[in-house]
Amino acid sequence: MDTNIKYYLEDLQLGMKSSTTSVITGKMIDTFAEITGDNNPIHVDSEFAATTQFGQRIAHGALSASFISAVLGNDLPGPGAVFVELNLRFRKPAFIGDVVTAVAEISEINLRTGRIKMKCYCEVNGKKICRGDAGVFVSKRPII
Amino acid sequence: MDTNIKYYLEDLQLGMKSSTTSVITGKMIDTFAEITGDNNPIHVDSEFAATTQFGQRIAHGALSASFISAVLGNDLPGPGAVFVELNLRFRKPAFIGDVVTAVAEISEINLRTGRIKMKCYCEVNGKKICRGDAGVFVSKRPII
Repeated sequence: MDTNIKYYLEDLQLGMKSSTTSVITGKMIDTFAEITGDNNPIHVDSEFAATTQFGQRIAHGALSASFISAVLGNDLPGPGAVFVELNLRFRKPAFIGDVVTAVAEISEINLRTGRIKMKCYCEVNGKKICRGDAGVFVSKRPII
Repeated sequence: MDTNIKYYLEDLQLGMKSSTTSVITGKMIDTFAEITGDNNPIHVDSEFAATTQFGQRIAHGALSASFISAVLGNDLPGPGAVFVELNLRFRKPAFIGDVVTAVAEISEINLRTGRIKMKCYCEVNGKKICRGDAGVFVSKRPII
């Protein structure tokens, strides 16, 4: 049995929930822009961002998606799980200094296929900034 | 008129398409893991990754999502556009050294609401590794 694996399919139950919290920094947005090539001035240019409806730089929506991916990859279902689907609606942006909590909760388990569905969202000060769901394949416990 | 804005809603047509190409590097995956907190060993630990079905480290699915976001944010519809929805299915992983092309094509335009839909995918060597769609709000041309 691989000691890196935290949960096998049989260990999971509906309603199991996990979260992770990150603080958005200007450097985080700049580095994210650098890696992904997404240099939209609404993210990286304070002067341009000041002219938009948001009045200031906003984090990439894909960064919120990544925080959700982090919950799935690190903790629930954790290492070994294969992320196969992500559906997200972005409702509000995250700003520099915002404390973003990404939450994922198991909403469906298919013991035959090994595929589970998770409800996901990110929130800032108790308000959801994005929400949706993810599909993940989880390994069955190996027969020893 | 804001000179950072490339396309207003009225400039867009069905079938308009844009893409961006990135090469996956180990450093890119490590930095992505660092920013997002997604340290799933399938991404960052070569030894663990060697024991999985993929046999080697794979890029985060959220990184492919971010390349798509880059097309939208940089080029089509470009600066000023607000990314409101993303639905993606991940079919194959991207490995270190893979040349990933993210493509987005306008598939619906709602001139009343300003919301457009884009078909999106990433491909490696002509094979789609993920596909889905995105929803974006685009500003109407200001009346001068």
